Amino acid sequence: MSVVARALVPSRVAMQAYALSAFGLQHLHRVERPTPVPGPGQVRVRVSAVSLNYRDLMMVRGEYNPRQPLPLVPCSDGVGVVEAVGDAVRGVRPGDRVAGLFSQRWSAGDPTSEALRATLGGPLDGMLAEQVVLDADGVVPVPDHLDDAEAATLPCAALTAWSALVTLGGVRAGDTVLVQGSGGVSSFALDFARIHGARVIATTRSAGKIQGLRQRGASEVVNTVDDPRWGDTVRRLSGGEGVDHVVEVGGVGTLAQSLRAVRPGGTVSLIGVLAGPTADLNLTSVLMRQVRVQGVFVGHRAGFEAMSRAMALHGLRPALDRVFAWDEVPAAFERIASGGHAGKVCIRVGG
Amino acid sequence: MSVVARALVPSRVAMQAYALSAFGLQHLHRVERPTPVPGPGQVRVRVSAVSLNYRDLMMVRGEYNPRQPLPLVPCSDGVGVVEAVGDAVRGVRPGDRVAGLFSQRWSAGDPTSEALRATLGGPLDGMLAEQVVLDADGVVPVPDHLDDAEAATLPCAALTAWSALVTLGGVRAGDTVLVQGSGGVSSFALDFARIHGARVIATTRSAGKIQGLRQRGASEVVNTVDDPRWGDTVRRLSGGEGVDHVVEVGGVGTLAQSLRAVRPGGTVSLIGVLAGPTADLNLTSVLMRQVRVQGVFVGHRAGFEAMSRAMALHGLRPALDRVFAWDEVPAAFERIASGGHAGKVCIRVGG
Amino acid sequence: MSVVARALVPSRVAMQAYALSAFGLQHLHRVERPTPVPGPGQVRVRVSAVSLNYRDLMMVRGEYNPRQPLPLVPCSDGVGVVEAVGDAVRGVRPGDRVAGLFSQRWSAGDPTSEALRATLGGPLDGMLAEQVVLDADGVVPVPDHLDDAEAATLPCAALTAWSALVTLGGVRAGDTVLVQGSGGVSSFALDFARIHGARVIATTRSAGKIQGLRQRGASEVVNTVDDPRWGDTVRRLSGGEGVDHVVEVGGVGTLAQSLRAVRPGGTVSLIGVLAGPTADLNLTSVLMRQVRVQGVFVGHRAGFEAMSRAMALHGLRPALDRVFAWDEVPAAFERIASGGHAGKVCIRVGG
Amino acid sequence: MSVVARALVPSRVAMQAYALSAFGLQHLHRVERPTPVPGPGQVRVRVSAVSLNYRDLMMVRGEYNPRQPLPLVPCSDGVGVVEAVGDAVRGVRPGDRVAGLFSQRWSAGDPTSEALRATLGGPLDGMLAEQVVLDADGVVPVPDHLDDAEAATLPCAALTAWSALVTLGGVRAGDTVLVQGSGGVSSFALDFARIHGARVIATTRSAGKIQGLRQRGASEVVNTVDDPRWGDTVRRLSGGEGVDHVVEVGGVGTLAQSLRAVRPGGTVSLIGVLAGPTADLNLTSVLMRQVRVQGVFVGHRAGFEAMSRAMALHGLRPALDRVFAWDEVPAAFERIASGGHAGKVCIRVGG
Repeated sequence: MSVVARALVPSRVAMQAYALSAFGLQHLHRVERPTPVPGPGQVRVRVSAVSLNYRDLMMVRGEYNPRQPLPLVPCSDGVGVVEAVGDAVRGVRPGDRVAGLFSQRWSAGDPTSEALRATLGGPLDGMLAEQVVLDADGVVPVPDHLDDAEAATLPCAALTAWSALVTLGGVRAGDTVLVQGSGGVSSFALDFARIHGARVIATTRSAGKIQGLRQRGASEVVNTVDDPRWGDTVRRLSGGEGVDHVVEVGGVGTLAQSLRAVRPGGTVSLIGVLAGPTADLNLTSVLMRQVRVQGVFVGHRAGFEAMSRAMALHGLRPALDRVFAWDEVPAAFERIASGGHAGKVCIRVGG
Repeated sequence: MSVVARALVPSRVAMQAYALSAFGLQHLHRVERPTPVPGPGQVRVRVSAVSLNYRDLMMVRGEYNPRQPLPLVPCSDGVGVVEAVGDAVRGVRPGDRVAGLFSQRWSAGDPTSEALRATLGGPLDGMLAEQVVLDADGVVPVPDHLDDAEAATLPCAALTAWSALVTLGGVRAGDTVLVQGSGGVSSFALDFARIHGARVIATTRSAGKIQGLRQRGASEVVNTVDDPRWGDTVRRLSGGEGVDHVVEVGGVGTLAQSLRAVRPGGTVSLIGVLAGPTADLNLTSVLMRQVRVQGVFVGHRAGFEAMSRAMALHGLRPALDRVFAWDEVPAAFERIASGGHAGKVCIRVGG
Repeated sequence: MSVVARALVPSRVAMQAYALSAFGLQHLHRVERPTPVPGPGQVRVRVSAVSLNYRDLMMVRGEYNPRQPLPLVPCSDGVGVVEAVGDAVRGVRPGDRVAGLFSQRWSAGDPTSEALRATLGGPLDGMLAEQVVLDADGVVPVPDHLDDAEAATLPCAALTAWSALVTLGGVRAGDTVLVQGSGGVSSFALDFARIHGARVIATTRSAGKIQGLRQRGASEVVNTVDDPRWGDTVRRLSGGEGVDHVVEVGGVGTLAQSLRAVRPGGTVSLIGVLAGPTADLNLTSVLMRQVRVQGVFVGHRAGFEAMSRAMALHGLRPALDRVFAWDEVPAAFERIASGGHAGKVCIRVGG
Repeated sequence: MSVVARALVPSRVAMQAYALSAFGLQHLHRVERPTPVPGPGQVRVRVSAVSLNYRDLMMVRGEYNPRQPLPLVPCSDGVGVVEAVGDAVRGVRPGDRVAGLFSQRWSAGDPTSEALRATLGGPLDGMLAEQVVLDADGVVPVPDHLDDAEAATLPCAALTAWSALVTLGGVRAGDTVLVQGSGGVSSFALDFARIHGARVIATTRSAGKIQGLRQRGASEVVNTVDDPRWGDTVRRLSGGEGVDHVVEVGGVGTLAQSLRAVRPGGTVSLIGVLAGPTADLNLTSVLMRQVRVQGVFVGHRAGFEAMSRAMALHGLRPALDRVFAWDEVPAAFERIASGGHAGKVCIRVGG
């Protein structure tokens, strides 16, 4: 422990966190814990805001990984200020405003097994705490123009969209991108496609959201309730060949139509699997039209940095649904569970 | 019609072809047809050898495309010598030894819908004829070191393997590639992986083929009959992370194990769909390990040219099962149907 | 000659062109020539507008290629409407509004020697004629939202900028791009960088052009007359590391500063060589900062099509300096020679 | 300092190193220094072998960087065994046989300024010492099949060749690669081209080396003394278009011919600048043939790991000239200075 860290961290100080003692939202309790001390190569972050993803809810319910050891501090996505650094920390200083990286061990390139496992909010303890200790490599600066709640939405939802379209997808001006609905990843995908000069077609299940999607920049919106064969509609809207990229967040429920919507040689980025783990994938259509189905597991540090640079340049902001207070955490999870939110659900951390 | 073409093509000359009058091998008959005359931009090829793919058998049976208009001259893969050229042909001369390109309209890059449709042996008439007329853009020189039957195996099986591993896959020395069985695409994939310096793991369902796969260059061979969870075995053989590329030819029957065999961030090239059109794809494993499932629809001219250059440099030759005579065409198809062949089944064209 | 072509092209019809009988602008004369007849695979275009590049002036003066056979119809860049098609033409129809491709033999990928040689306006006859016959593969549709003079600026200047930044450069949102001055390539580069979400820094030698560059979207403009070590300034303006891409149009005069402006691992696209053929390139700085110096020879058809799609989506228009009349052609060349133009110099073709 | 490190490192122990007190080989002296102690995130390596590069000689002479602070322990390339690890070290354990990475701060992707500066053997102290302390991120395992002297050749010469041809160059089977001479980078480039299935053309200034180059796998060797316009010869040997890649190590003396040898759209990797810092680069030929001139600054960790994997699979070994003893260090440098070596010059470290 460095002198600096020692000075800043009286050992009797305690902090609050939410911990899951058993699966189920009713088992998520506020607890007191000693303030953690950063070891060599680590930093302590005073967390100011957390953003919820559907994954966090699944984790709490035991649906994401039934073998997750408990107790667990949930939530992968959070932002705060570095308040202490251990020995041998380079490139991070007290006072830096940072987010935790979803994968704590993935700097660039393809992921390793270790990168896939070292994720916050399960299996590793997450950000729903007043203070967290992370590896210095596990935090990353966030853009200045975002407030804390806004910045807290980047690690999972925004980076996933960036990885799909930019890091892995190479989107460029004049391309057509299909996004599905108004959820976090889809909204960021819409923004990222737009700043790269792509045309965006969006789907929605709600007539009430059509206008909002257009305002955010979708040039066409297709109501999939009215038009169950929306894949063909999207193909027609994109010149008959199909779209260049699909950011597929629905999985089982929508993949068949997405494969109809995508052009020969195009890409379907597989993001979320909302409706179950397996799907009757039509392999023939993948094969016979040379489609690429690209799984996207959030992303790496280099992608986060590039994304932040672009968001800062363009002043992009996520849409927030509501920022809950520190004693309203269960209500925030219930908001996600209800599906009625429009924009990201966040939590202000601390008393 | 050019003067040259006119001189070489007395109009009363006739030639032989096999034509399918109705679906079913019993409806594939040898017929006489007038010698075709190349129009502007076209060439006439005197076909010397044809190679069969499983697709050709499916086409004859009506399984590939039940709506294929008949009669049809089947077979996508054939080789011959250019004997007449129409007006305005550039880059092809009488005497050139060429293959027909599987897709007659695909020079490079991503395929268009038109590229996917303009394929020989259905919907377009194929190569099972003594003389064929093709667009000058639809033929491509073959390597000198191959005899006609050997060269006839390139358009479909070889180019598919090249597209999967090289054009789309970017294989490099030190990578590990998984190939399945001893079929045409898999054998070419083994060769192409090897000349790029990759390590090859092969699977087989037949103990008798293990030795041959080793001799061809596989460093490990896994018998999938003895080891139904061979995906885990392959992953273990590749350092615990999994292989970089899988050349997946089995489709429904093998995809689940292939997804276990591939490393995080790796590629599964989806080539053939032998056992049915759809599969219970485990989307979660694609997503959570950032796997790329890449459909491969044979390939383009630029890929064929690069492949030929590499095959010539390395003196690569396909394994041939048997070269049937012109009056043994039904037997050649039956050989494919039997599944008992080892290597490519070819036909010597002409009386 | 096809029946269609025959019907549309009475052989006695004549047309006007400008032809260079000897090097020097004074030897560029308006001449009458028979209307050309499209052979198989060819189309005839009734040219409506031509756009001048500095290359055209060099060609006329004999500076570009002193061994260019004469007479020559100059000018690579022109637009018109297809009025007759020869036999065996696919994908082009009478009535299509098209540009000639700078390289008549380059569909995609890396160029061949043939692609480099088959260029309009020298060695091949160019577009400064009322009617031209081109290969069907040598024309490409232009975006609807541009008038003829605007569309005539695409083949050379616009495509070069697109190739540099997009096809070869892979620019993405958040990148920083340096463009030099207000010439054709630089203006298109500014536009293309901007629609991809990049930040643009521009240089200029004229204080009077700073405002215009800002209005077009440059976030910073550096006056290189006031600041001869502008490379360091640009590096400082891009966070101290340097810019991601430089679109280098000055060659000898500016390359040394460009190499100071670019970040480690960045790209300098080498476009034009205004001040002489060789330069004292500081190889050490290329090497020690892993810079890529990428020569850009205009571009291929696939790039043109992608560019047109993006320009149409974004409604991009070139800045035009002036559109000269058909009998003012020498004045148009003198306008280029003067260097006083701002925007592209065009010519309305025909009487 | 961790308990483990403390236990293994009695503080009175001393070790030997070579240190440069002033520029000039005569100022390179063997000195005694206290055994260094690894701090958090660091490891101590007992060095067993060092390999010399021309850069090391330039550094000693003050030619590489006249402002290098002294004293300096020279030599970037060395191998040894980890004997102590500090706190918070992950992924490196005592007993691991490792090399130091040339750049101590470059894991993947494009280099940063920091990556370019953090290099061993200047400005940072290098490997010519019995014991060195490096960041755990600054060491990398070496292939088992190499002895220590062989493995010591990898960090600079081998990785530079790998970066040029594989990481940045994407060489593939059937390509043609030009290598120059028999030096370290060129020999590795020959090997790496060959295992990727490329054809290799080599140049040499010495008739006596032709046979050796052929044995190592060059299919053609051109004597550049006899053939000063060897660029044209190489172009002719590669089908008239030119080679796909040139690994350019000569810089000023050879670049003009390399630009003649490379095909349109091909790559010249700029590695070494033996004959001075600037060259009269013919910008026109770079531009007019769309050549890429790619500076190569050694390479990153991810490249080293991929290279090691490939070298292990293929059992590649560097050619060694001679392994000097620990008290013969000046003679080893003189051997490099003489230019008479064939293969890498190494030093066995320690008494």
